Amino acid sequence: YGKNTIKFLRLHREGKKHFIKEVEVCTHLRLTSPQEYLEGNNSLVIPTDTIKNIVLVLAKKNGIPSLEQFAIDICNHFMTTFCQVVYVKTYVQEVPWQRLHENGVPHVHSFICVPDGIRFCEAEQCRNGPLVVFAGIKDLKLMKTTQSGFEGFYKNEHTTLPERHDRILCGELFCKWSYGECKDFDFDCIWYMNKIRECILEAFSGPPDCGEYSPSYQKTVNCIQMLVLSKVSQVQVIEVVLNNTFYNVLDMKNLGLTNDKEVLIPVEAPYGSCACTLGRKMFFEA
Amino acid sequence: YGKNTIKFLRLHREGKKHFIKEVEVCTHLRLTSPQEYLEGNNSLVIPTDTIKNIVLVLAKKNGIPSLEQFAIDICNHFMTTFCQVVYVKTYVQEVPWQRLHENGVPHVHSFICVPDGIRFCEAEQCRNGPLVVFAGIKDLKLMKTTQSGFEGFYKNEHTTLPERHDRILCGELFCKWSYGECKDFDFDCIWYMNKIRECILEAFSGPPDCGEYSPSYQKTVNCIQMLVLSKVSQVQVIEVVLNNTFYNVLDMKNLGLTNDKEVLIPVEAPYGSCACTLGRKMFFEA
Amino acid sequence: YGKNTIKFLRLHREGKKHFIKEVEVCTHLRLTSPQEYLEGNNSLVIPTDTIKNIVLVLAKKNGIPSLEQFAIDICNHFMTTFCQVVYVKTYVQEVPWQRLHENGVPHVHSFICVPDGIRFCEAEQCRNGPLVVFAGIKDLKLMKTTQSGFEGFYKNEHTTLPERHDRILCGELFCKWSYGECKDFDFDCIWYMNKIRECILEAFSGPPDCGEYSPSYQKTVNCIQMLVLSKVSQVQVIEVVLNNTFYNVLDMKNLGLTNDKEVLIPVEAPYGSCACTLGRKMFFEA
Amino acid sequence: YGKNTIKFLRLHREGKKHFIKEVEVCTHLRLTSPQEYLEGNNSLVIPTDTIKNIVLVLAKKNGIPSLEQFAIDICNHFMTTFCQVVYVKTYVQEVPWQRLHENGVPHVHSFICVPDGIRFCEAEQCRNGPLVVFAGIKDLKLMKTTQSGFEGFYKNEHTTLPERHDRILCGELFCKWSYGECKDFDFDCIWYMNKIRECILEAFSGPPDCGEYSPSYQKTVNCIQMLVLSKVSQVQVIEVVLNNTFYNVLDMKNLGLTNDKEVLIPVEAPYGSCACTLGRKMFFEA
Repeated sequence: YGKNTIKFLRLHREGKKHFIKEVEVCTHLRLTSPQEYLEGNNSLVIPTDTIKNIVLVLAKKNGIPSLEQFAIDICNHFMTTFCQVVYVKTYVQEVPWQRLHENGVPHVHSFICVPDGIRFCEAEQCRNGPLVVFAGIKDLKLMKTTQSGFEGFYKNEHTTLPERHDRILCGELFCKWSYGECKDFDFDCIWYMNKIRECILEAFSGPPDCGEYSPSYQKTVNCIQMLVLSKVSQVQVIEVVLNNTFYNVLDMKNLGLTNDKEVLIPVEAPYGSCACTLGRKMFFEA
Repeated sequence: YGKNTIKFLRLHREGKKHFIKEVEVCTHLRLTSPQEYLEGNNSLVIPTDTIKNIVLVLAKKNGIPSLEQFAIDICNHFMTTFCQVVYVKTYVQEVPWQRLHENGVPHVHSFICVPDGIRFCEAEQCRNGPLVVFAGIKDLKLMKTTQSGFEGFYKNEHTTLPERHDRILCGELFCKWSYGECKDFDFDCIWYMNKIRECILEAFSGPPDCGEYSPSYQKTVNCIQMLVLSKVSQVQVIEVVLNNTFYNVLDMKNLGLTNDKEVLIPVEAPYGSCACTLGRKMFFEA
Repeated sequence: YGKNTIKFLRLHREGKKHFIKEVEVCTHLRLTSPQEYLEGNNSLVIPTDTIKNIVLVLAKKNGIPSLEQFAIDICNHFMTTFCQVVYVKTYVQEVPWQRLHENGVPHVHSFICVPDGIRFCEAEQCRNGPLVVFAGIKDLKLMKTTQSGFEGFYKNEHTTLPERHDRILCGELFCKWSYGECKDFDFDCIWYMNKIRECILEAFSGPPDCGEYSPSYQKTVNCIQMLVLSKVSQVQVIEVVLNNTFYNVLDMKNLGLTNDKEVLIPVEAPYGSCACTLGRKMFFEA
Repeated sequence: YGKNTIKFLRLHREGKKHFIKEVEVCTHLRLTSPQEYLEGNNSLVIPTDTIKNIVLVLAKKNGIPSLEQFAIDICNHFMTTFCQVVYVKTYVQEVPWQRLHENGVPHVHSFICVPDGIRFCEAEQCRNGPLVVFAGIKDLKLMKTTQSGFEGFYKNEHTTLPERHDRILCGELFCKWSYGECKDFDFDCIWYMNKIRECILEAFSGPPDCGEYSPSYQKTVNCIQMLVLSKVSQVQVIEVVLNNTFYNVLDMKNLGLTNDKEVLIPVEAPYGSCACTLGRKMFFEA
């Protein structure tokens, strides 16, 4: 049990310059005994209202150094404070505020919401177990208008899809990776120094002047994983889910026109999905 | 990988009387080899477009005897037709159409959408493993305006929640149960004969003339599980998640009024959540 | 300016039996002078926080006799209390809670949310003008699987739609009517005695044993309007919007099957929409 | 009546460089006679399917030079082609794809969806009336963490809001302006040369080094309008709606802490809203 979508803004001021972090936190606990379920005995139950208070108190006291560090602080607090807690998991997601710029000059206290991918993280710990930290980005919508195809697939009497060597690839990415048993990582430093977001975009799109051919969604997923694993040494395992939107080249023959992939209709349902988890020693699951 | 939200309506006619089943299907597969991810070799890949075709062909040929049977049929088809498939999972969810009635008379071909709980099911199978079937109901919103409290909970310096012995209990239920290794079950018969939905409502609300006191969300979750397990012998394990909306008794003192729980404000975020899985031999996980 | 989505639950108790009304209220005002916009002078501005307080105080004091009466009470309060208000509009929408029944017996304090059409109303008043009251129902999703066609329409070189005399008609209805300059109406009485909701369902679907042929969405819209106007004398003008979901009969020839309208695919975007406003003296606008 | 959410992607290629425009179009018509409503006579009705075809054919033939020009082209087509059409309105909204950049180099064919404000436009025409064009931006979420207050407002016994001279101002902007009876405008040129979006951001936030004090949402709305009207001569009338999210400074006294506006809770419902329409000769409506 736990509390979901604890939303708050943490404001930090350095003179006239303001820094903000707005987040959504979910914290879940498991207790030593299920007596509140079976007997209605609440004596060990930490109310979800208290869970919320603790999250807000930690935000007030420590600020949010990074999403990951904040999630770790929350887990540590529950483990060290409450002996009836045997498991704690905390998910933190960021509202994508960006500082406004006017003619290139950063504004001291104005921000705009730019939801082109949402950063999140998760920390979890069992009593006597290691603390495990995950980080990721979701709701990242990308499109490439060529250098994508799908050929040579398995066919039988239920196959009606034609082979295509030049199609549109459009999808929403969910990427989540594990930092293993993290020690004293500076998580924002890993994120920015290794340009993880840029890695993902580059693996999806290829070189800016020509792109790179994708023979399937699956291969694109794998490229993203391989590039992140090769560039970011702290990442142990990476899961990528690509939910793709099919763009149908509209047949305009009955309207007397030839449509050379100029007008395409997005097909939102049903949509294909491919997911893969890749680790350093080729642990594999699809 | 697979195809999500394959939506269709299956219409069945018996003379002037029409019967409909509109569903949303998600089918996911895992293949023997990850070569399409690693090498871009698509030769074993069944396109998600083909997966969609197969689902629609099965609906056309067999109809939808029950959600569960339809999910089983799909799993069986993939397992028996494609030797490269090592795992298949199918989720089916129903659009809650109900036959219209005029002055108590059922209409032969008119329907209304009544989303007071959505039935769904899931079937999954590993090659050489048993077929496992789950069923459930979700998005069921219930409220009781008394006979609910929360007292005697754990307190420390971060506790600000007062004890209450008469509060509103309002939440959205998600219930999912396993039928174990099902043989030739008539799933709709189990659903209707055992009145599973009525069971859940009854366990939540208690006797119609007085209700039954709930000392916590957790206990209410447990009551639902116990009643379903006791009344439906085919159910092996049942998971219940209760996402609750807190109703705050508005303090109207500064407006010169005494509010005796007459005006309450729903607090949608953050919300508490409690989840429990209960099996016949008291396997427990929260 | 004003306050939107003021949500609250009004609980009324008669002994052990509880009655609830959960609503969402939006109240907007226009003031005599725009000085707060032009000069930043707030001296006449009633804060939206005060607007919220007033709505809640009225709910506490008067209860919610009917949605319409509550909206009228709010408008009256602003007009009589604040001379700087020149216009007020209030929208009230109901959360569709229904009393639970166990084996036909109504429960004293348990409810279920059944969103099969949402009742709403609107009251508006200009200073020195009449109070105007609207009521309506929205998000009402209906389907008939036959007795619907669309033939004899205008054709040119851009027409690819075939004529059909037996198609599925499925849509979401929005109905809103005016009670004119209402005096002392008992609005719930009008709603229930005249069975307005039943009227709409009946006009949509026709007799239960055979239905009634609809030659177009437009004609169905008109039927609904005509029936409501003929049965409910207090209704002056009625607007109906029908957003229809097209169900495409899947062509299964390339899968070796003949699909006799048995498997149909809902097409959610784009969707057609037709709107019409009909009054007692045939004021017309589409 | 008409067709809503006609979604498509228009792809234009110049050698290896690709240009995309994905839009959502709604087109509504009114006909000379309501005979299809009253008599079920469809002979003048242009099916919504044909409306969709026409939109797609125009996109194929002309491309989308600008959202506004495309909306105008659609209106013109219906007015000149169908004498039974007495009114046509077309709304076009853009999916906010942006070209990807790698280390500052634009990618030839890869794009990312960046929904930080959605451009839209509307064109409407009555037969024998002028063509009127509107343009706008919506879903633009902005925040300033200081230089905002609300003081000196009207107070009575229902006022509980304290005066504040340093609060957070956060809101979602909807801006829509009219270009009057436009002649041969180059609408994208107006948009980009006049930096309309930048104007709105600047009027909201003030100078980057210190901001500008906002005494109310209303005044901020007015500032935006004044700046756009002063900088963009083609704009005749501008409507701005600001839906604001209140950030509540959490009282942490009962948790033993002093919260100096460091931890704030967003209150999403209810929310305040202020709307104003401002024209060149001070036509005013709130």
